[in-house]
Amino acid sequence: MEPFRLTASQAQAKFKDGSLTVEQYAQSLLDRVAARDSTVNAWAYLNPELVLERARELDAIPPEKRSPLHGVAIGVKDVILTKDMPTQYNSPIYVDDAPKIDAASIQTLRANGALIFGKTTTTEFAATVVGPSHKGPKTTNAHNSKRTPGGSSSGSGAAVGDLQVPIGLGTQTVGSTIRPGSFNGIYAMKPTWNSISREGQKLYSLILDTLGLYARSVEDLKLLLDAFQLVDDEPEEPFTLKGAKLALLTLPTPEWPEPGPGTAAALKKGTELLRAHGAEVEEITLPDEFRSMYKYHLQVLSGDGRVAFLADYYGAKDKMHGSLIDHVENKDKHTRQDQLKAFDELAAMRPKIDAFASKYSAIVAPSVLDEAPVGLENTGSAAFCGPWTAMHTPVVNIPGFKGENGLPIGLSVVAGRYRDQYLLRVCTEIGKVFEGEGGWSR
Amino acid sequence: MEPFRLTASQAQAKFKDGSLTVEQYAQSLLDRVAARDSTVNAWAYLNPELVLERARELDAIPPEKRSPLHGVAIGVKDVILTKDMPTQYNSPIYVDDAPKIDAASIQTLRANGALIFGKTTTTEFAATVVGPSHKGPKTTNAHNSKRTPGGSSSGSGAAVGDLQVPIGLGTQTVGSTIRPGSFNGIYAMKPTWNSISREGQKLYSLILDTLGLYARSVEDLKLLLDAFQLVDDEPEEPFTLKGAKLALLTLPTPEWPEPGPGTAAALKKGTELLRAHGAEVEEITLPDEFRSMYKYHLQVLSGDGRVAFLADYYGAKDKMHGSLIDHVENKDKHTRQDQLKAFDELAAMRPKIDAFASKYSAIVAPSVLDEAPVGLENTGSAAFCGPWTAMHTPVVNIPGFKGENGLPIGLSVVAGRYRDQYLLRVCTEIGKVFEGEGGWSR
Repeated sequence: MEPFRLTASQAQAKFKDGSLTVEQYAQSLLDRVAARDSTVNAWAYLNPELVLERARELDAIPPEKRSPLHGVAIGVKDVILTKDMPTQYNSPIYVDDAPKIDAASIQTLRANGALIFGKTTTTEFAATVVGPSHKGPKTTNAHNSKRTPGGSSSGSGAAVGDLQVPIGLGTQTVGSTIRPGSFNGIYAMKPTWNSISREGQKLYSLILDTLGLYARSVEDLKLLLDAFQLVDDEPEEPFTLKGAKLALLTLPTPEWPEPGPGTAAALKKGTELLRAHGAEVEEITLPDEFRSMYKYHLQVLSGDGRVAFLADYYGAKDKMHGSLIDHVENKDKHTRQDQLKAFDELAAMRPKIDAFASKYSAIVAPSVLDEAPVGLENTGSAAFCGPWTAMHTPVVNIPGFKGENGLPIGLSVVAGRYRDQYLLRVCTEIGKVFEGEGGWSR
Repeated sequence: MEPFRLTASQAQAKFKDGSLTVEQYAQSLLDRVAARDSTVNAWAYLNPELVLERARELDAIPPEKRSPLHGVAIGVKDVILTKDMPTQYNSPIYVDDAPKIDAASIQTLRANGALIFGKTTTTEFAATVVGPSHKGPKTTNAHNSKRTPGGSSSGSGAAVGDLQVPIGLGTQTVGSTIRPGSFNGIYAMKPTWNSISREGQKLYSLILDTLGLYARSVEDLKLLLDAFQLVDDEPEEPFTLKGAKLALLTLPTPEWPEPGPGTAAALKKGTELLRAHGAEVEEITLPDEFRSMYKYHLQVLSGDGRVAFLADYYGAKDKMHGSLIDHVENKDKHTRQDQLKAFDELAAMRPKIDAFASKYSAIVAPSVLDEAPVGLENTGSAAFCGPWTAMHTPVVNIPGFKGENGLPIGLSVVAGRYRDQYLLRVCTEIGKVFEGEGGWSR
């Protein structure tokens, strides 16, 4: 198998047994990028010489001194600061801007031996949903160049889906990590809010923005959580599907849109598979008290965007997308009282969602409306991703299903806050079933 | 009067009528620093040539093109990124570190014509309370070199108090802005949480950290709030003390320490003065439901510090203060459930505090236990500052009183969230009374 096809954990096994060097691995990834980049366009910055130089530095470390993420190649969404590469936010204000500073997440990954590979495309400031004609990325879906990879973490989703890199970093403020995960047929995780430092990651909303993780196996996600020292309260007990009690949330509340046929079929098939493997699956809807969640979410975004984009607005309003200007100018005339009410109501819902989730082994829910839509001009709806961002709970997109046009569709699996490691154990088992029998494969 | 004695607004009036240039003003401030720096030690970085060069650039702008903060000189706490000066956090890890990037607050201030003057001292990462023998700043109180200036915004508090600069930026996670404000006899404001972007400001706690503002007049604070586009919902109606209904909060809950004699006397005298000027003052305590606020505050700090300092811990644990290592290693063995409970309970208290505050024109409360203590090894108790940080409400320290040793003591004035401009109108009137009749003057 060509090295670029390996997951990070598989590549690490070969580094350990001496059958692959980090440099050979990096070269294979670079070859894959070279073959595919003119189609997929996943990279905002990639310097092959820098990658190979770092790879050789890692190879020079004696085996006994290697760190847990030794040689793990990571594509970094271009809203996260990297001291050896520009950070451009897909904004004309920041073309070639390259401050010598690493985000906290990058510091941690480097300290653990990771190979920071390059910067992946994003929509402007990770805060718009528009395509190339409005400065959006030219990135295409990993499995069909006529379709969107999703956004705003477009490049990380597409690059990991297209085997150009095993791990990607994204961010999520509504659905910017989970949506590209489903569209590109990969695992995507939004951990518990503030469980990984967001320092050095472009700010949109303090209470919503979360670092997102992409991989092609649950094992790889666990590598990352361990490096970030995400530890649950509960001990690491094995999870089995047999006897598990899962909640199937087809429609969180009547405020949400109806899933399309691909997602509806995935939910149906997923349920059948889980039951066939011994799990109890109870179809649920969220109680009425959560009905206004999405409305409050958008209200908080609006108030927070007003603050977050003021500095760039002062400096270069003419170079910003209209939706960001609208935030700063408070075009919708939201009051501060509206903003506080939304902020406080979401806060009050969080412990209630935890209590609700604790009645089940996990919640299974749609990740997206359907397979990736045709065209690059719109990155798709994030409606189903929003609840877990607003509620701060960890969520993982598991791939395995396909839509009417053969594109991948994933489902979201959710647990209460700070049960991130537990959630990965659940996803290991559900992932085997969905990937093995769901009907979609790369 | 020597220019260095002017408030920012007074200096701006002279720029406008042509009786002072920004360069002359900057030179006067630099002369003041030169005369006092060996005693006060307020600066972590100050480059006179850079200051004068920027001042000349500002003078070169034609009067009709000048911005609202034209020539306003600002000392910046050295945990806030500045692209033309190092940012060192008082940490040996970051000695001479100078990434080319401005924090969002600095971008906004520069875009408004401010003169970013230099970097002011801080305790390590704005997260310790220790003095020079433990890497704490050598900064002394502006009014007595044997006493602490408070922390963690030690340098900004001392520099503004000592007339070395008219405006300072601080940060507050418990009491790091308000405490140095009281100790150095100046106005200090912690605006509503997240009403000014914290991007590019060292992270300790996402839900607590707030940019802080120092000045020697309320008029100067208003200049800053306007530049940051802090707008209340309510119209700008004049506030008068006559007929105002103020709450006097001598002891928030029994969990708080007793004020010392200086603060007790200030509260007594402040009350008499307010009543003499026609205000009704009602002595109150917070209802029992707020009793655990401080405990929850410390719990959130602990959990958030665990995340915030992980990256530096990986890179250079041996160069960090023990209290920060304890955070990362979770020495107190806090559980995630403890952390969530504290986070959620504080969130639930916030709308209740707003409702409580709305029954009064404002709340008057102690800022600190007493005048600045002798010695530099401890920056003093932040107990009285904590509630307003945890509750996200705006708070202003108003100087005017003095302790048993003649050092300044201020009182805090508080309103509900997003009533920042209203609070300044209240403080204009209370400030006249406290500064005029409180008994302390520079």
